[in-house]
Amino acid sequence: MNQDYIIPNEWSIIEEGFNPDMVKSSESLFSLGNGAMGQRANFEEYYSGPTFQGSYIAGVYYPDKTKVGWWKKGYPEYFAKVLNAPNWIGINIAVNGEILDLFNCSSVSNFKRELNMQEGWLSRSLTATLKNDTTIKIETKRFLSLSLDEVGAISYSITPISGDAKITYTPYLDAGITNEDSNWDDKFWEITNIAYENNMAFIEAHTLKTNFNTCTFMQSQCFVNGTTATLSPTVEKLDKKIYFHYSSEIEQHQVFTIHKYAGYTVDRNHDKDQLIPAAKKALSKAIKLGFYKLLEAQKIAWSKIWDTSDIMITGDIKAQQGIRFNIFQLNQTYLGTDARLNIGPKGFTGEKYGGSTYWDTEAYCLPFYMATKEQKVGRKLLEYRYNHLEKAIENGEKLGFTEGAALYPMVTMNGEECHNEWEITFEEIHRNGAIAFAIFNYYRYTGDYSYIPEKGLEVLIAIARFWKQRATFSTDKNKYVILGVTGPNEYENNINNNWYTNYIAQWCLNFTMETLEKVATDYNNDYHRIITKVALDSKEIETWKTVADNLYFPYSEEHQVYLQQDGFLDKELTTVAGLDKSQRPINQKWSWDRILRSPYIKQADTLQGFYLFENQFSREEIERHFNFYEPFTVHESSLSPCVHSIIAAKLDRMDQAYSFYLRTSRLDLDDYNKEVEEGLHITSMAGTWMSIVEGFGGMRVVNDTLSFQPKIPKQWDAYTFKVNFRNHTIQVTISQNESNFTLTKGEQLQIMVNGKSITISQNTIITA
Amino acid sequence: MNQDYIIPNEWSIIEEGFNPDMVKSSESLFSLGNGAMGQRANFEEYYSGPTFQGSYIAGVYYPDKTKVGWWKKGYPEYFAKVLNAPNWIGINIAVNGEILDLFNCSSVSNFKRELNMQEGWLSRSLTATLKNDTTIKIETKRFLSLSLDEVGAISYSITPISGDAKITYTPYLDAGITNEDSNWDDKFWEITNIAYENNMAFIEAHTLKTNFNTCTFMQSQCFVNGTTATLSPTVEKLDKKIYFHYSSEIEQHQVFTIHKYAGYTVDRNHDKDQLIPAAKKALSKAIKLGFYKLLEAQKIAWSKIWDTSDIMITGDIKAQQGIRFNIFQLNQTYLGTDARLNIGPKGFTGEKYGGSTYWDTEAYCLPFYMATKEQKVGRKLLEYRYNHLEKAIENGEKLGFTEGAALYPMVTMNGEECHNEWEITFEEIHRNGAIAFAIFNYYRYTGDYSYIPEKGLEVLIAIARFWKQRATFSTDKNKYVILGVTGPNEYENNINNNWYTNYIAQWCLNFTMETLEKVATDYNNDYHRIITKVALDSKEIETWKTVADNLYFPYSEEHQVYLQQDGFLDKELTTVAGLDKSQRPINQKWSWDRILRSPYIKQADTLQGFYLFENQFSREEIERHFNFYEPFTVHESSLSPCVHSIIAAKLDRMDQAYSFYLRTSRLDLDDYNKEVEEGLHITSMAGTWMSIVEGFGGMRVVNDTLSFQPKIPKQWDAYTFKVNFRNHTIQVTISQNESNFTLTKGEQLQIMVNGKSITISQNTIITA
Repeated sequence: MNQDYIIPNEWSIIEEGFNPDMVKSSESLFSLGNGAMGQRANFEEYYSGPTFQGSYIAGVYYPDKTKVGWWKKGYPEYFAKVLNAPNWIGINIAVNGEILDLFNCSSVSNFKRELNMQEGWLSRSLTATLKNDTTIKIETKRFLSLSLDEVGAISYSITPISGDAKITYTPYLDAGITNEDSNWDDKFWEITNIAYENNMAFIEAHTLKTNFNTCTFMQSQCFVNGTTATLSPTVEKLDKKIYFHYSSEIEQHQVFTIHKYAGYTVDRNHDKDQLIPAAKKALSKAIKLGFYKLLEAQKIAWSKIWDTSDIMITGDIKAQQGIRFNIFQLNQTYLGTDARLNIGPKGFTGEKYGGSTYWDTEAYCLPFYMATKEQKVGRKLLEYRYNHLEKAIENGEKLGFTEGAALYPMVTMNGEECHNEWEITFEEIHRNGAIAFAIFNYYRYTGDYSYIPEKGLEVLIAIARFWKQRATFSTDKNKYVILGVTGPNEYENNINNNWYTNYIAQWCLNFTMETLEKVATDYNNDYHRIITKVALDSKEIETWKTVADNLYFPYSEEHQVYLQQDGFLDKELTTVAGLDKSQRPINQKWSWDRILRSPYIKQADTLQGFYLFENQFSREEIERHFNFYEPFTVHESSLSPCVHSIIAAKLDRMDQAYSFYLRTSRLDLDDYNKEVEEGLHITSMAGTWMSIVEGFGGMRVVNDTLSFQPKIPKQWDAYTFKVNFRNHTIQVTISQNESNFTLTKGEQLQIMVNGKSITISQNTIITA
Repeated sequence: MNQDYIIPNEWSIIEEGFNPDMVKSSESLFSLGNGAMGQRANFEEYYSGPTFQGSYIAGVYYPDKTKVGWWKKGYPEYFAKVLNAPNWIGINIAVNGEILDLFNCSSVSNFKRELNMQEGWLSRSLTATLKNDTTIKIETKRFLSLSLDEVGAISYSITPISGDAKITYTPYLDAGITNEDSNWDDKFWEITNIAYENNMAFIEAHTLKTNFNTCTFMQSQCFVNGTTATLSPTVEKLDKKIYFHYSSEIEQHQVFTIHKYAGYTVDRNHDKDQLIPAAKKALSKAIKLGFYKLLEAQKIAWSKIWDTSDIMITGDIKAQQGIRFNIFQLNQTYLGTDARLNIGPKGFTGEKYGGSTYWDTEAYCLPFYMATKEQKVGRKLLEYRYNHLEKAIENGEKLGFTEGAALYPMVTMNGEECHNEWEITFEEIHRNGAIAFAIFNYYRYTGDYSYIPEKGLEVLIAIARFWKQRATFSTDKNKYVILGVTGPNEYENNINNNWYTNYIAQWCLNFTMETLEKVATDYNNDYHRIITKVALDSKEIETWKTVADNLYFPYSEEHQVYLQQDGFLDKELTTVAGLDKSQRPINQKWSWDRILRSPYIKQADTLQGFYLFENQFSREEIERHFNFYEPFTVHESSLSPCVHSIIAAKLDRMDQAYSFYLRTSRLDLDDYNKEVEEGLHITSMAGTWMSIVEGFGGMRVVNDTLSFQPKIPKQWDAYTFKVNFRNHTIQVTISQNESNFTLTKGEQLQIMVNGKSITISQNTIITA
């Protein structure tokens, strides 16, 4: 059974009633982020129950010494982790001398938590009776400012209900934090300075090894019934923490409020000597505006984001909540403003996977960011990999490749490989394909070819060299084969001729050769600059062609399908339908060998190829492969259901597409994979967006034209999405009866709808 | 280049000249053991240079918490390690107030180390000039007594050369030791008592978790020019150590000697409260005999071992030294007196691999111990696995097997799996085959069938059940296949239809069915007892037959060979001959993926099957497979060259057989695999013995008859070995001209020589 405690709502994630068992799940689901920093939805006040505390700063990582049982040559020495950063949200509460701890109250009632995605804030309200019989009402609200992205703001109000009460607010900064996933219990942070003046406090700390300098800061103001209460705090300065105690006798039914402004300044944006002055400046701006104006600015900033990225669904509130949750979390994680940052698979909601960059960025996130942000955001995502090219070539060299062949890392923070499982690190090489495909996809979508001669071609050449060297000529098959790989389906390891890998390898070789020709013709200066730089000659290109033209693809005549890998048909081909529920998810129930020899597919693998290269196959072929592989797929990767949803929609299997859509969009809300406590699946959320826009909406770019094949699940009345396409913005509304297309930005655009060319003009609704 | 500093000698391992770079290598090569305990050849005195300190007690292990990067379900929680035990060999030396440290002397000359294998002792002599210009001569001798196996003895003599000198001997016990391979720097030992009286000291310590109680003890005596010098020691007792200081002014050319007797008493042999009294008793016995009588007893004990196990080679001193080194080390490691002990792959010479039991015991060691020891030793080795059957069934259950199917652990100390690499732990399942084969092999060699109805059959049934469940029916092949395994060649992982695994699986099923029939007929009571106990019925046996009769074996029509696994011919089939020396050993030079997709074979895999089941194949078949696989084999496992040597000898390729023999017999002496510093390859040493007796001597058991096909490398004049066969002992001498067979124990025995039946009588030399 999936979890089912989140209250359906169009714009908010809502939890009602206090259940300690759900605290860690809610800490993930109600996470906040603003691209620059983020936090799990930990309570401000002390909590002694099960909790997973997490605050994170974008781009601040630590090279944790790697941990493996049996070292293999080629493994990287360390694993870069997004660090749990100093905590600034904490406000301890004492009520008549008793520390408030929801896990230890006599009663907690009227508990409600809301993550308002439209406006970008998190609130909590509750009534608590403490062990000392004092009853208080609590209302909190907090947000991480988009307009002042170094600052977060908290409003925390307590109203004594059962009589007058002495309330103490103790806002604090805590740099005594560790990572839940630390390998060796290394110390990650060194504190260099704890300072305070007036109501402000600062902790300067830098990470060890990577030496990122940060200042965590706070400033608080107190109010009684909305009027400023000038309380002089007692300050308590410890080794790693600093506490301010604000105490006041509050009468029954009076509202005692603290506003805490806090956040981080980091040396990515300031001189490391200027972190405290920068913090003071940020605090002064925040204080000057005050909580409510800052909140107003937050609403405006989020409304701008929603304006270009919202998807509205009518008639299906759970579906509506799901897609907005996905879009909201993506925007909380990455806003596309800094090419040094990327989209970690857990964003700012947890630590698993190290918070680094995966192929998810190229395969899943790029289309979302291209369609909902300015063009330069997509380009920044590509540049991230261009900037890592040299390290990808070094990584290739470590594995025995030569002459500029690049293998991009499976997981990275700074271009170096961070992952240490031979079957993944060394063998899940299809990631190189996704990185090349993104260059094509960016050009296809934006029409901006300039990136390719400037930077992209170098990446393509290095990747083509890799594939050429990675293929082996089999005299037995008289074909080139690619041995010993792990495909997207990680429930197969060290297999031969994974169809997806072979296909994308062939595509990379061909696309690189085509691109070389085009660049030679259209950008001749760049062409000569590049082939000189990388020492490429026609003889080498000829070897690529030989491999591409003679690559082997396992095929079953009996089933008329390409086989996921050599030997797939030797498996006992029982389907997921026959698998007892008690055995799911199999990765939590079965030993690895059993998973490997089963036919069960963790995530779209062959179908991933049919998704990416759909135009190279007939509908019948796609259908045959979907029919063959879908029944074996357990979707235990978050990246799987969206691809299946898109293909099912294409095949007009709308019920199936809808059910996959629900699974992908509510994966975390409903906790399909029983792991939401560890954090959210951020990158796959872009897949959810694709499953609506590309799946139901059928959006494609064909020959520089945006094309749609609108469909709608029977459960919905209508849905509306907007996409940005080559400086135009198109709003698409699809209902059960008709599809409407409006150009909200740009003069005029020709699009295709169900194969028919239509011209749309600004603010005119075209119905098709 | 292999190392080449050990001086060839028939009976001794000798090093001349002091080279700090070789200290760790020599610490391995000159190791001492007596079955109950063992040590690396660390210097007695303080040494500040690179060293790997190691003292080990048989059967004393610690469940070190396991360390993996990515946990997989089914992994065991801990890894049982032979523990580095308290050190008792230490004797610090001060000469005129300066601590003797060979790494920091002004000069060290006349350095000689000798491991006398004939008599079982280690000696060292040298002249050292200290930084304070004092020159001394040192002579030491030490041994671990076979007759008093709780005791070791050291004689350490210093002669001042440059003038009178004040010498201080500081014999000590040190329980402040750690394991080099500790995963988490856990504390393994807890010291409960440090006591002393007169010249004796005791440290009682127990292992944490496993709670093995031990007492480490010592007692010393000093002599000047051979006459007892009654010196009262100063005692220094620290937290984890105890030192006795014996000082004396020694005149130039006088010999100052200390005899230190020391060792362990353990609660496997004594009440845990009686460890100190037992230690006193052991010391009193040793002191009473004195160093020289104890040494006499040592010589006698070793001469008895050599009497049944020596192999004499004339005309090739390096080959002679090699085989004796192997036989010596095997006997130092395991003497077959305790069914609770087994043969760790590094014996008492290092920590790698955890010192636990591998399939090496059954596949390699059993034949050696059967032929050179009493029959009960082989039986004890089998009983070890019978005693672990329940845990092997539990291990199977953890991996999803049911109804009494057993998967024996890859590595174990107490029956539980200790290893954590999915491709080995879960997939290197052929180990189950070796364990079943050993039951057959024991019966075949000893003629003692009684073990099977008593115990062996239960093991066979549990293993047959495993194979039946582990096979998958492939509708595509219309055969049973075995998917996702690692064969003996660990340079292939997660492969399908490994020929060796499939073959031994089929053999296990068939042998179990045959055995059931025989036991039903000949031991009907046992039969009923067992099938009731394990709930076996004829229907289940029928399913075994179906699998056995329909198992798939990959075969190449083109090459007319069975393929090591599915897809082997897709590899680029370049041979080892073409591999640049700089790339060897590939496991130290190449990343794992590169090794996996290469054709290179770590150790005999298909050929291992042809070795075990030779009688089921024609000579032509064996030759074809040898020709096909040998050129791809890199022999980077110590277990490989012996099998190749045996097959090469069978095929009359004596030069090749000889070269493999040299490699296996001098693997550690010449450090072929560049890892001797970590310890010796003990279990493969039994393979060296096999390569002479089974390879050159061609010894087999055919229909209860011992058969020989004598051959001899052209480099040798002659060689002689003895085997114990069913209460007879046969001595075989093979020279370039003839072969002589003598029965040294027993009245009369019929043997086969080159296919001809011969009867030999006691003490009559038969020439064939």
